[in-house]
Amino acid sequence: MIPNLSPDIELATRLFDELRDASFDGVGITRDAYGAGERRAHEQVRAAAEGIGLECRTDPVGNLLMTLPGSDRAAKRVLLGSHLDSVAEGGNFDGAAGVLCGLAAVAGMKRAGFVPGRDVTVVAVRAEEAGSWFPISYPGSRGALGLLKPEELAVKRQDNGRSLADHMRDEGFDPGFVERGGKTFSPDDTAAFLELHIEQGPVLEGQGVPVGIVTGIPGTRRLRAARVLGEYNHSGATPRKYRRDAAIALAELAHRVDDRWVELEARGHAMVVTFCVMGTTEEAGFTKIAGEARFQLDVRSVNPRSCDLLMETLYEAVPEIEARRGVRFELGAETTSRAAPMDEAIRDGLARAADALGIRHLAMASGAGHDAAAFAMAGIPSGMIFVRNQNGSHNPKEAMRMDDFADACAVVTRWAIQMR
Amino acid sequence: MIPNLSPDIELATRLFDELRDASFDGVGITRDAYGAGERRAHEQVRAAAEGIGLECRTDPVGNLLMTLPGSDRAAKRVLLGSHLDSVAEGGNFDGAAGVLCGLAAVAGMKRAGFVPGRDVTVVAVRAEEAGSWFPISYPGSRGALGLLKPEELAVKRQDNGRSLADHMRDEGFDPGFVERGGKTFSPDDTAAFLELHIEQGPVLEGQGVPVGIVTGIPGTRRLRAARVLGEYNHSGATPRKYRRDAAIALAELAHRVDDRWVELEARGHAMVVTFCVMGTTEEAGFTKIAGEARFQLDVRSVNPRSCDLLMETLYEAVPEIEARRGVRFELGAETTSRAAPMDEAIRDGLARAADALGIRHLAMASGAGHDAAAFAMAGIPSGMIFVRNQNGSHNPKEAMRMDDFADACAVVTRWAIQMR
Repeated sequence: MIPNLSPDIELATRLFDELRDASFDGVGITRDAYGAGERRAHEQVRAAAEGIGLECRTDPVGNLLMTLPGSDRAAKRVLLGSHLDSVAEGGNFDGAAGVLCGLAAVAGMKRAGFVPGRDVTVVAVRAEEAGSWFPISYPGSRGALGLLKPEELAVKRQDNGRSLADHMRDEGFDPGFVERGGKTFSPDDTAAFLELHIEQGPVLEGQGVPVGIVTGIPGTRRLRAARVLGEYNHSGATPRKYRRDAAIALAELAHRVDDRWVELEARGHAMVVTFCVMGTTEEAGFTKIAGEARFQLDVRSVNPRSCDLLMETLYEAVPEIEARRGVRFELGAETTSRAAPMDEAIRDGLARAADALGIRHLAMASGAGHDAAAFAMAGIPSGMIFVRNQNGSHNPKEAMRMDDFADACAVVTRWAIQMR
Repeated sequence: MIPNLSPDIELATRLFDELRDASFDGVGITRDAYGAGERRAHEQVRAAAEGIGLECRTDPVGNLLMTLPGSDRAAKRVLLGSHLDSVAEGGNFDGAAGVLCGLAAVAGMKRAGFVPGRDVTVVAVRAEEAGSWFPISYPGSRGALGLLKPEELAVKRQDNGRSLADHMRDEGFDPGFVERGGKTFSPDDTAAFLELHIEQGPVLEGQGVPVGIVTGIPGTRRLRAARVLGEYNHSGATPRKYRRDAAIALAELAHRVDDRWVELEARGHAMVVTFCVMGTTEEAGFTKIAGEARFQLDVRSVNPRSCDLLMETLYEAVPEIEARRGVRFELGAETTSRAAPMDEAIRDGLARAADALGIRHLAMASGAGHDAAAFAMAGIPSGMIFVRNQNGSHNPKEAMRMDDFADACAVVTRWAIQMR
């Protein structure tokens, strides 16, 4: 029998307000990774955690661990958390919601006098949004998991040119921990990592469901700097057979790839395919046939086979279009990332918890990457729960109804309690 | 029996060199319309015409008329000519070739002591390239034909902000002639206008034929500032059904319109269709679905029905794509221009002349507009002959083999002689 504990939503609400007040930049929320904005948020959250008697410590790369001790302190712990940093001029919920959910859950346990079977640690991971400040992903979680390569410490923050290691040191942390191969968490000491996050797309809102249980974080196949090279010519005086029109070659490729997406989706492949940038360059102009066009392609799916089938269509279409239209594609380097499926037992546990609470939920893939992908890569069973959100993320209009957040926190709390 | 006269190619060759020397700007040829560059070229050509004894006069809008008197001076005259101005950093042949062909033809007649049945007037039209200096087309020929509207005199030259009327006055001309509805040429006094021009595309070179006989100057249907409006969203977190992707909507439209062109061309519609500019805007970026895309469309055909069929496909596809993809097209104003078919008797006469001389020729549509369109619009039977050219036009690498030019001049000369 699982006790019916309420998470402390009042605590979370108060902390959302405090975080917003401290990090409003005039337009949105800015909590820069390994910078002053993130530091302030960590101080605020740590003070609240200490206020309710959690054991607090910061690991050598800056992640904040706030632990409610369990009855068996030698048992593998459960981690609840997310990140506190944000993009510049972002919103108050992307990241912070997962940390405050963890605090609400353990505060609820403490308030009820409930002692979990194992330590429950709320973790505020550093620098999940590092990618908008440094050309690097997840240095905080990867740094804690032994997955950050020492050479990655040398990457420079884009607005000030100082390295990640410099920023870590500025904040009082120890990049040497990464060089020495240190780990804060490993499968040997951690039973599970669960991350609550606002949904960054419109699915839950569109379906009228408050909570999503994430099936996986997608892998990607991406072209970031692809080009089509043709020949600039007079649009009036150059008949079709003499053309090498880069614009229309790209339009054909994009349309064919998009048609393939429709076909794959009809066959059950869940995926997204986006020509983020697509078109002619500044050289183009009226009465000219375009001699060059550029594009960026972002293909994502939890199922690597789906990405591969899509990209096969592209790689087959390219030489055929080249031959027929007299153009040349320079696709540039393709970058890939592996999908991180979420742990099935955690997904089942979350679904059971939600069902027991009468909270409607939807199984769905994540669209974006999250720290949970790093934990999963490190071999720690990982899960994510999404909260319905009205206005996307990474913008000041990020929204989340506190009722939906409370529902999701109730699911997380119930799930954590049954992790005996 | 038509006497076999040779055009004076040496005269033309010398004048090409003189024009080039006087108007080389360090990169290419610049003879600015109603400016110093065009003035110098007119002076050079007039001096040569006077040197061979032609009657020279400049009309009130600056067109230079160089006449070999015919035996019946009351008969309608024959006009041979083109323009002497150029785009900035252009080539030496676009325009000048047609004027020097006319001079070579009448110089050849004079050298042989041949007196034509009617006046043959070589005309150097002003400002055919006006469009690259002023936002206006053919002020020289239209000003001579009563087709220039008085309000068009107020348009400003783009690099100095002064009006067309100002520039005319600076050069000693009389914009009042336009205001008074004056005409230098009309169907009552002009039997024909024939313009030799370098081909601005690759067709003659590709077919290995020196001379093209132009079937017509295409009409156009054009969108110069069309947009597709969708919604910026996260490329990972937004499934297909929630997308309003402007980029892929535009790619589909462009590809479908291009497919329609293939189909129409297979059914015999000679036309060109160009998405000159096509693509996302500066707002686009990686991991974003594009909320906006822009395009320019240029559709041309000598047959208005061909343009109409193509545009019908576009206008049918737009609402269908809007409904399916959740985007909105703002096509902006469509601009149109009427096709100017070349006179059939002139085309036949040119073909007979070429055949008699054993010169291979090809019937072909013009891609671009020319003064001949204005003459045709004014009701004067008009024709054009194209000379094979290797490197397009409006650039310093414009090419034309003098042998091909000589062939074309021979055709023009024979045609002019038989215009009794």
